[in-house]
Amino acid sequence: MEKKLINLGIFGFGCVGQGLYEVLNKTRGINARIKKICIKDPDKPRPIDQSYFTTDKEDILSDPSIDVVVELINDTAAAFDIVATALRNGKAVVSASKRMIAENLGTLYTLQQQYHVPFLYEGACCASIPIIRNLEEYYDNDLLNAVEGICNGSTNYILTKIFEEQLDFDTALRQAQEKGFAETDPTLDIEGFDPKFKICILLLHAFGTFVQPDEVFNFGISHLNDFDINYARQRSGTIKLIAKCRRQNGHVVTYVLPHLITGHHLLSDVSNEYNGILVESSFSENQFFVGKGAGGTATGSAVLSDISALTYNYHYEYKKIAQRNSLALTNDIQLKIYLRYKKTGQVDLADFYTISEKYESPDNHYVVGMINLEKLKNAAWLQNKGVNLLVLE
Amino acid sequence: MEKKLINLGIFGFGCVGQGLYEVLNKTRGINARIKKICIKDPDKPRPIDQSYFTTDKEDILSDPSIDVVVELINDTAAAFDIVATALRNGKAVVSASKRMIAENLGTLYTLQQQYHVPFLYEGACCASIPIIRNLEEYYDNDLLNAVEGICNGSTNYILTKIFEEQLDFDTALRQAQEKGFAETDPTLDIEGFDPKFKICILLLHAFGTFVQPDEVFNFGISHLNDFDINYARQRSGTIKLIAKCRRQNGHVVTYVLPHLITGHHLLSDVSNEYNGILVESSFSENQFFVGKGAGGTATGSAVLSDISALTYNYHYEYKKIAQRNSLALTNDIQLKIYLRYKKTGQVDLADFYTISEKYESPDNHYVVGMINLEKLKNAAWLQNKGVNLLVLE
Repeated sequence: MEKKLINLGIFGFGCVGQGLYEVLNKTRGINARIKKICIKDPDKPRPIDQSYFTTDKEDILSDPSIDVVVELINDTAAAFDIVATALRNGKAVVSASKRMIAENLGTLYTLQQQYHVPFLYEGACCASIPIIRNLEEYYDNDLLNAVEGICNGSTNYILTKIFEEQLDFDTALRQAQEKGFAETDPTLDIEGFDPKFKICILLLHAFGTFVQPDEVFNFGISHLNDFDINYARQRSGTIKLIAKCRRQNGHVVTYVLPHLITGHHLLSDVSNEYNGILVESSFSENQFFVGKGAGGTATGSAVLSDISALTYNYHYEYKKIAQRNSLALTNDIQLKIYLRYKKTGQVDLADFYTISEKYESPDNHYVVGMINLEKLKNAAWLQNKGVNLLVLE
Repeated sequence: MEKKLINLGIFGFGCVGQGLYEVLNKTRGINARIKKICIKDPDKPRPIDQSYFTTDKEDILSDPSIDVVVELINDTAAAFDIVATALRNGKAVVSASKRMIAENLGTLYTLQQQYHVPFLYEGACCASIPIIRNLEEYYDNDLLNAVEGICNGSTNYILTKIFEEQLDFDTALRQAQEKGFAETDPTLDIEGFDPKFKICILLLHAFGTFVQPDEVFNFGISHLNDFDINYARQRSGTIKLIAKCRRQNGHVVTYVLPHLITGHHLLSDVSNEYNGILVESSFSENQFFVGKGAGGTATGSAVLSDISALTYNYHYEYKKIAQRNSLALTNDIQLKIYLRYKKTGQVDLADFYTISEKYESPDNHYVVGMINLEKLKNAAWLQNKGVNLLVLE
């Protein structure tokens, strides 16, 4: 078994970058060393020696001795620029930037084919769960039906605290931020964008389908109020933000929506910052993966696994694309939802296909009914903070 | 992406062989076809065309057009002979024979190195859970602490029926046999040999440690009686047969023992014929994998995944062996156990390190205490059908 010594050039030294530094230092058996770390702010105090750092990206991108570029920055446009340039320069790349990857999957796939360099991003999807690797390596021959689950650690932490410790939403959010699971601007998490980026990436590895994140409907937990929480509690249920892609009538349906979960369900046991992914196939039926979905070392460890895989010349095969039976995305399906609103006229009930329950009180109204996902995606009334939905299954 | 067309020669056409035939027929995107199936009994009626079958193993082993030998027979010695011969003949091999593999890991590893041919056996460990692939591919750089869980579908089915449906042991066993999860001779399952073979294989891929199954202590669920079941129920617990390997004081501890599980525990939700494996590492902490652990198509699907991996030239790297920091096995640890017996003198309480609880009634006695695993392994009194143990954690 031959192992290369790998020189790393790292972009970014925030939570994940420092997590990577930590796991790299504690790990035997991987021949990789950090050569340079490119950062934005040279004056910020850093926990490691100053000689590692540069503010000039060319110190990494144009250094022929650097084999692998590790991209861990927050700026999506700059991240894409770094990754694309590195691939064009023939360097292998590891990244954990889910948004950048989800928004540029087509281009990033083409660049890998064109320049014959690997681009790995296990850390971008569910941190410590090796889900991309599994979809790539294991399910290529299975008749996959669905990939779904909890893939945002900070909203799951918030929902766990609400349902298990009776915290209110704002306190739970603050705790998640203090623990480093949620960003200072939590919009991407609590509005369900972050899990959408992840499910768009998983969709490609599961079904060979390229989509733009804009095509996929996401609705998070930021509209959740006490009435909804009580609605779930009265039904001995819990609420989970679920990202899903599922084969249906020759197409694939993809969305991120809050679900009311009642009864025995594997996902209801996934707590706090953990993520859980269910993979359903025709033959082996359900597979279930649980692991830490947030935190620097969990993601750092996934990034390090990608670096390690590069020492064995691993690359994604994107077998589902090559199999040429990729499924097209559809939003033309009916969902059973609970829709809560403040007053009559605030939502357009004519958008529903059928309504089976209707509840009215001075402060809260709700209906239960079937609605088309495409209608839901386009519903302006859903943007109103006084309106919330839960998928019922 | 290049894909080879693979010609398969299959040994055995029982439950797994037929499952493989079924999944192979339903799967697009894998270029493999069955050329020959070697069976023992030519007169047994077969569900597919007679021209597939032969009783002469040389029709497969000496046919240069056959690339991959798939070994799925029950006879351990014959299975080893087939696999070893095939590897020496330069053929890739896929097998699901856990006992044969566990008992011959050293030789099988050496043959792979010597003849540079891959030997894959994901179907031998937890059927549909890609645990070997994950330990191989993903955890090579992590500081692994433990791999443990439920890896015998039939005993888990029996225990689930006992605890969830109040069936008695014999009825539950009969149901498991009727559903095809348990063999006609269920000894290997209910006495914990089958999960021991699996954990011995996982031990190599997790920690790089070669052991003979005889060195590892296994005690199954065949001594379980109503008193034990009530003991667990009274503590709001359940009983699970757990196979475990865990790093401890620079060594690795490995065993298969029934555990009393109380409180919230991921493994307590793994029901029926499902298997569940917890992987604990220093960085990403717990990973949890759940999937079907028994049944022809679950195993057939794992076997097919191995075949598919061969079309991409996949082979196990056995990285932990190459890292040369493999851990030695030890049985020198203390376990906290519940030990139930019928009458004084039936067990040797002097073998205990400490005893913290003692219960006596006309029909049943039990003690709770700490005992050394090596002492337990050598205890002749444990062979008595009237004696049972549960590990308490």
